[in-house]
Amino acid sequence: MVKRKPCLVENCSTCGLRAKVVLCDIAGSDLAEFEKIKRTLEYAPHQTVFYEGHLCLGLYVLCSGKVKLTRSSTRGQRQIVRILGPGELIEKHVFGERALHEVTCETLEPSQVCVIDKERYLAVIRGNPQLAIKLIQLLSNEVGVNMDHLDQFTFKTARERLAGLLLELGDRFGKKHDDHVRVGLTLKREEVAEMAGITVETAIRLLGVFRDEGVLTLDGRTITLLNSDRLSRIAQR
Amino acid sequence: MVKRKPCLVENCSTCGLRAKVVLCDIAGSDLAEFEKIKRTLEYAPHQTVFYEGHLCLGLYVLCSGKVKLTRSSTRGQRQIVRILGPGELIEKHVFGERALHEVTCETLEPSQVCVIDKERYLAVIRGNPQLAIKLIQLLSNEVGVNMDHLDQFTFKTARERLAGLLLELGDRFGKKHDDHVRVGLTLKREEVAEMAGITVETAIRLLGVFRDEGVLTLDGRTITLLNSDRLSRIAQR
Repeated sequence: MVKRKPCLVENCSTCGLRAKVVLCDIAGSDLAEFEKIKRTLEYAPHQTVFYEGHLCLGLYVLCSGKVKLTRSSTRGQRQIVRILGPGELIEKHVFGERALHEVTCETLEPSQVCVIDKERYLAVIRGNPQLAIKLIQLLSNEVGVNMDHLDQFTFKTARERLAGLLLELGDRFGKKHDDHVRVGLTLKREEVAEMAGITVETAIRLLGVFRDEGVLTLDGRTITLLNSDRLSRIAQR
Repeated sequence: MVKRKPCLVENCSTCGLRAKVVLCDIAGSDLAEFEKIKRTLEYAPHQTVFYEGHLCLGLYVLCSGKVKLTRSSTRGQRQIVRILGPGELIEKHVFGERALHEVTCETLEPSQVCVIDKERYLAVIRGNPQLAIKLIQLLSNEVGVNMDHLDQFTFKTARERLAGLLLELGDRFGKKHDDHVRVGLTLKREEVAEMAGITVETAIRLLGVFRDEGVLTLDGRTITLLNSDRLSRIAQR
């Protein structure tokens, strides 16, 4: 029997993240409509929320937990496009008609996902031009993020890419202490490799080199960054 | 003295492309306002419209001609991100506040570019929710295009990438005949390499291999595709 837990985010009107999430940052009758057109789903770790190539059933917002977005080649190679945390819109490209998922979405931790009916959400936008403009700006920024991501693969060496990835994970999911940053994600070596776009062997070797150089410590799957300045120089940021 | 030619697209109300360009597909008082907030610039071939890293002065639409968008690494490596033709929005990410150009834009042919004041355009959007939704959908699709572009660099070999690029150029800029497609762009070998993300030497070698395999013919800078089906199989589409 599936164990039923209470909702992690009980409802939108009391959600602390709402003001930070463009899609949900609405009030009054818009919020009442929003509550009607969303469905909340809960996932255990390592479950699949949706698959690359499938038709989008709506707009997906991550209310709590962490998910990874992966993309596969026809030969079965896999790449982790991004890891998302609470309050992020899972796929930002799905406003088009009959959009297909660009990535596969899997949970890394217990997660709560909200699926919003796209057509009815577009109707909310139609009546709320300020929301429309914020969404245009959000999507507009996303194009820049993707361009930076592309640079990693066109211009950088494996060593630079791994250093850049570790810094990004530290920035987004790190627990900062006086002189070190503990990456608050327990990723398999394989996942680190799939994020940096390098082989597992190279990832293991380079993590060893970084450890020997005193840049980080490795404790099982926990990575602690000791020298972000040096990592930043290696990454050629 | 600079030679002054008449505008290639005289004004928006008679422009044949307007219905195809989301940004310009407006009418009535919106169009009158649009004519007021745009400035039209003309460029000779191989001139720079704007530089990567500079502050965006507005929204750029290519009214006529062709431009290439390039991106450079800190080490000076360069990659052609995309070639655009008439009616395309040059950078789709510039709706954000204080946006910087993600790419450098250079003309390949005589070109006419329209620069639209962003703040005043956002005001037009505010009063036209249908336009807002079309823009949201346009930006949304762009994220998918970028994801496909990323696949080229993460999953594909040089041979597959070059084959994919030639097919794309044939689709977008090709003159189709019964049994062949002439790519309607005269690109230097260096530019082909920068688009495929491979070295010039590899580009020259692989073009020679494709020619010897009967897939295409080369006549100076003109490339004619003889066997798109085979190219498509090579590209693993």
